[in-house]
Amino acid sequence: MSVYIGLVHYPVLNKAQERVSASISNLDIHDIARAAKTYGAKSYYIIHSEPGQKKLLDTIKAFWENPELPYNPMRSEALEIIKQCDTIEDTINEITTQEAMRPVIVTTTARKMPEQIPFGYLRILRQSRRPVLILFGTGYGLCDEVHHLADHILEPILGDGVYNHLSVRSAVSVVLDRISSEYIYGRNHGYSAHSWQRPNQNRLSRISRRRYGEGPL
Amino acid sequence: MSVYIGLVHYPVLNKAQERVSASISNLDIHDIARAAKTYGAKSYYIIHSEPGQKKLLDTIKAFWENPELPYNPMRSEALEIIKQCDTIEDTINEITTQEAMRPVIVTTTARKMPEQIPFGYLRILRQSRRPVLILFGTGYGLCDEVHHLADHILEPILGDGVYNHLSVRSAVSVVLDRISSEYIYGRNHGYSAHSWQRPNQNRLSRISRRRYGEGPL
Repeated sequence: MSVYIGLVHYPVLNKAQERVSASISNLDIHDIARAAKTYGAKSYYIIHSEPGQKKLLDTIKAFWENPELPYNPMRSEALEIIKQCDTIEDTINEITTQEAMRPVIVTTTARKMPEQIPFGYLRILRQSRRPVLILFGTGYGLCDEVHHLADHILEPILGDGVYNHLSVRSAVSVVLDRISSEYIYGRNHGYSAHSWQRPNQNRLSRISRRRYGEGPL
Repeated sequence: MSVYIGLVHYPVLNKAQERVSASISNLDIHDIARAAKTYGAKSYYIIHSEPGQKKLLDTIKAFWENPELPYNPMRSEALEIIKQCDTIEDTINEITTQEAMRPVIVTTTARKMPEQIPFGYLRILRQSRRPVLILFGTGYGLCDEVHHLADHILEPILGDGVYNHLSVRSAVSVVLDRISSEYIYGRNHGYSAHSWQRPNQNRLSRISRRRYGEGPL
């Protein structure tokens, strides 16, 4: 029922495939908080243990938490779901305490690996009573030790061809979209889940002729 | 068949709902190029007419185009699909010349508006012979005049509740994912399009018992 997002900054890989700690990026904070809030994640954990990086995160959060900020309350609302933990273990422990149940740990990767679960299975996990923590890696991705200790590794997002190098911000958005109910079941739409195969004719007939023509734009 | 992405910096809205020109953001360049490349878009147009902004874009592109760059060829590959045009009209004209056919213009918005097309219809448009140009707004979104002149306005991405404030980077990724064939038809997966309803038991049975247990992580 409850989905938690964890953005891991250690242990992750660098371009030489070495285990490193990555820096916190401002847009990882904002973009992922907005996606997590949009898709109803319960919390978005930014996982980093370095004091300077934690202070940076606190400063950015504090700026947006200021109730007298004259603009963009939507941004402040999104950043409210951010939490910080030093390690993956601390994150799991905090969720376990809060939910009185250990979350299912699902790791993500752009690589094909043995025994990955399909998105459909993650969707089913999401609907169960047990909370789900989905871990994303910064840098060049999560270290294998994280995958090995997780309950499941999610299959990669594959696009149109051989290139699949989405930013972590895009990857979080796509994963949350694929496991959310809106797209598949057409909730809030009034047309069926299979509308990509047969678009609702009543709906389309309401569109003016001009829209099908060659506009002046 | 061909999908083009256009990131519009003018005319867009600011927070006061005024018509303004927005600045180019570095991560809009990178994240959207990577998503466009991953999902097989033909080109990613960055639409801005201000000389200083165009120079900034050129500098960033030139940096990544340097063939002697010692790292991250994947990033250079993504940025190769970026093109620049001064206006939406120029973009349409350039695509029209290249394809010998005017593209279908589809605008996007986070708002509910009359006569929006569902994602399923955009998916069908994508499969037709005519190229499709999908326009995304920076700032607080595209001005109404752009929507009014487009052939179609795409329905908004709705998440779990009332909050839907995705970044434009997330929105592009989700739109491209929803209209790509991989997710729905399970291409490259070996399981059916409906696997979210009945996960492939053969596949799941290959997952070791440990993955279902309470790991030490």
